[in-house]
Amino acid sequence: MTELREDAFLGGRLRILQPMRGYRAGADAVMLAAACPACDGDTVLELGCGAGVALLCLGARVPGVRLTGLELQPTYAQLAQRNAAANAIPAELYQGDLARMPDALRGQSFDHVIANPPYFTQGMPAPDSGRGRARHEATPLPMWIASGLRRLRPGGWMTLIQRADRLADILVALSASAGAITILPIAAREGREAGRVIVLARKGARAPLRLLSPFVMHAKPSHSADQEDLTKAAQAVLRGGAALSLGSPNFR
Amino acid sequence: MTELREDAFLGGRLRILQPMRGYRAGADAVMLAAACPACDGDTVLELGCGAGVALLCLGARVPGVRLTGLELQPTYAQLAQRNAAANAIPAELYQGDLARMPDALRGQSFDHVIANPPYFTQGMPAPDSGRGRARHEATPLPMWIASGLRRLRPGGWMTLIQRADRLADILVALSASAGAITILPIAAREGREAGRVIVLARKGARAPLRLLSPFVMHAKPSHSADQEDLTKAAQAVLRGGAALSLGSPNFR
Repeated sequence: MTELREDAFLGGRLRILQPMRGYRAGADAVMLAAACPACDGDTVLELGCGAGVALLCLGARVPGVRLTGLELQPTYAQLAQRNAAANAIPAELYQGDLARMPDALRGQSFDHVIANPPYFTQGMPAPDSGRGRARHEATPLPMWIASGLRRLRPGGWMTLIQRADRLADILVALSASAGAITILPIAAREGREAGRVIVLARKGARAPLRLLSPFVMHAKPSHSADQEDLTKAAQAVLRGGAALSLGSPNFR
Repeated sequence: MTELREDAFLGGRLRILQPMRGYRAGADAVMLAAACPACDGDTVLELGCGAGVALLCLGARVPGVRLTGLELQPTYAQLAQRNAAANAIPAELYQGDLARMPDALRGQSFDHVIANPPYFTQGMPAPDSGRGRARHEATPLPMWIASGLRRLRPGGWMTLIQRADRLADILVALSASAGAITILPIAAREGREAGRVIVLARKGARAPLRLLSPFVMHAKPSHSADQEDLTKAAQAVLRGGAALSLGSPNFR
């Protein structure tokens, strides 16, 4: 692994070591954590937790949440462990493959599963192997979802963030055993098509699907170099550590 | 069938006889027609065309389009024929069941299929039989989509309007043999979740799914009695007969 760098998240409340090169978690991981409707005492499993950004953002927001992470790459799994300790957020980290779930996890079921599965399904992996593994889809997206659903208790919630163009694959995979699907489109700017979607679903539920109004990340019509064009809502989540409510009164 | 009433569509360019009671097409049918990317000379089949509102809106907007409608209920099929003649828009109307496609249609393939399948899947049909048949889902939504896809030529386009909460069912059904799926959420007001979706898909295509920014129907924060709170974009479609572009440069 390359050199490490410390990145600040949630306005500096979290300091996370990540490789300088290779896969680096960013806003998507923070958004994922913000959208998970976990409460004090709930158990949460993250599939593919990388260096732990999403898991630790969730731990920073929700006191008493019980965090578990699974990561395929040993160096990232170790980093996640180190980042959890450095931020004084308890978390159990496992190195292993979600397609061959470690025995310690196979015996458990969780109130929540969260995941930010790799985004690139075609083309060559990036030169750095860590980045390549995280970005290249060795494990197909439907397997991430099926594996996560198996680890949920009945009535438990799955929260995913993914490229918007994978929405059909996500809904096909979720439809097998989840309902109450809520889709939050994430648009870079007002009026743009969605670049990402956050999808929340409940295992075994039959409530109807909801397609929410988009969450808009940037306020100005074009990108400015100083990065200070985040909308107030995006600032509240990314800097302020606010929850991203997907708004069902039937969350619990 | 009950008494008939003449309704104006597209700012009065179309005059359509519909039953005073029972199923009556409205804004959704006009939106469906506006979203169909048909051009001069293209063939279009509407499944479940009712009194012909969507089909005739499309004929009014696109000169030279060749219209075919299939309708299960004989009284509506006859009304569609009468409405086409009264508006001087050529259209071939068939009475029949999409689940047992009439031979005359089974031998044809179309450039476009459009449909506004019934919305209510549960509960009792409405008292009036015509309305009950149109609103109650005797034919399951996946069958509408599968039947439509079979009638499309390779590379042909399907355009649907449906309740937003059926999006998963739609995407599951389309994924079997269509791609280039484009979803336009329709929201009653800015910031509201989608009530309807228009979904466009291309038979045999592999282009990625797109989730567009919502189309907003009403401008004011609350409903006003005079109905004059339509957004300019909604007025352009509903009154002006404008096309509703789903915006792909690869439409053709």
